[in-house]
Amino acid sequence: MSLMWSVKVVGLGVVAFSLSLELLGWLFGHLRHKRTLNKVLFFPSEVACVEHLFSPNSARACFCPLPHGVETSFSRLLCHILSATSSLDLCVFSFSNMDLSRAVLLLHKKAVTIRVLSDKDYSAITGSQIGILRKAGICVRFDVDSAYMHHKFAVVDGRLLITGSLNWTLTAVQSNLENILITEEAELVQPFIKEFHRLWVLNDPARFYKNLISDDEH
Amino acid sequence: MSLMWSVKVVGLGVVAFSLSLELLGWLFGHLRHKRTLNKVLFFPSEVACVEHLFSPNSARACFCPLPHGVETSFSRLLCHILSATSSLDLCVFSFSNMDLSRAVLLLHKKAVTIRVLSDKDYSAITGSQIGILRKAGICVRFDVDSAYMHHKFAVVDGRLLITGSLNWTLTAVQSNLENILITEEAELVQPFIKEFHRLWVLNDPARFYKNLISDDEH
Repeated sequence: MSLMWSVKVVGLGVVAFSLSLELLGWLFGHLRHKRTLNKVLFFPSEVACVEHLFSPNSARACFCPLPHGVETSFSRLLCHILSATSSLDLCVFSFSNMDLSRAVLLLHKKAVTIRVLSDKDYSAITGSQIGILRKAGICVRFDVDSAYMHHKFAVVDGRLLITGSLNWTLTAVQSNLENILITEEAELVQPFIKEFHRLWVLNDPARFYKNLISDDEH
Repeated sequence: MSLMWSVKVVGLGVVAFSLSLELLGWLFGHLRHKRTLNKVLFFPSEVACVEHLFSPNSARACFCPLPHGVETSFSRLLCHILSATSSLDLCVFSFSNMDLSRAVLLLHKKAVTIRVLSDKDYSAITGSQIGILRKAGICVRFDVDSAYMHHKFAVVDGRLLITGSLNWTLTAVQSNLENILITEEAELVQPFIKEFHRLWVLNDPARFYKNLISDDEH
């Protein structure tokens, strides 16, 4: 083979290689973009049995009078919350829904790190689940500075944002017109993670005790 | 030039052409993805003058006592609402914020098609701007079926979704912990457009009158 032939073959090889790399990069980017979850749920939700979500491996059939095997906005919301494997950061104004409370307690039992930030006034109303979460050993903090801590968002595993108009109550789920947006879009998730961290540190009770002791000393 | 040489040159040309196409496609996709707006605003907002947003071409300086030239969460929210050029679909539980009302009225004057869907009970409370919008000729409908019409979202020009925990009130903007998510992500915007349309048709007063007449006839 002449020298010129070799140069041509090597040149063609380089072009083919760069083309393959480009194609692979494009395919990878395309697939990654496709995998980013973006979903919207609307409420009120149909009412259906969600028992199977709490014990998916149980062989026992549920005999409650609610419809079974129906996928609803609420069952989809529950699924996303129960998908947590390492952490759940919850920042919610009003929390009285017993199924959502049960989901959080189940995750806590599975050693998922739970942090709950809530509104101090609304945590004291009848039916609030905040006291039950606290008694189970879940770390809860209250916002003390603002008129209302009106957020209704959760971050699952530092990756998935669940946010919207829906408070974690039975009325919101079954009777109101509400929305929940579920996304993995980093540009949307990251600011919520940052804001949760800011509020969590800001409302650390240790800071108040420290200030109290420091005030007493002066 | 020999035939073999021509074949090689044409082959190389084809490879180079497909490579360029691939690169252009990748660059275009990359730029298009970058342009999709995804933004989060947190509240309470700093309080600052927003007069310049209502009359951006005015040479008159504003002498109000509020800070000037400060960009805040609220001024950013106002900017996105005022960016509407063809339509604004608004679905909001409580609407008493006068600056937001002024923005909607300004868009109406500029012939932007405005549709407002609100909660029937909360529209009647003192300070609600819903009556003022109606008097200005803006089309308003009320949800009559649900416990609360608890949404707080807007769709600008069928393209930009503004949604979150924030009601369109002064307390929400200046005193509460709230969030607003602004996105052009089609997977998130389209379901809200569809839901707005569903609720708009569902709460058409003509349907009730029709039913009323039909009931009287039987």
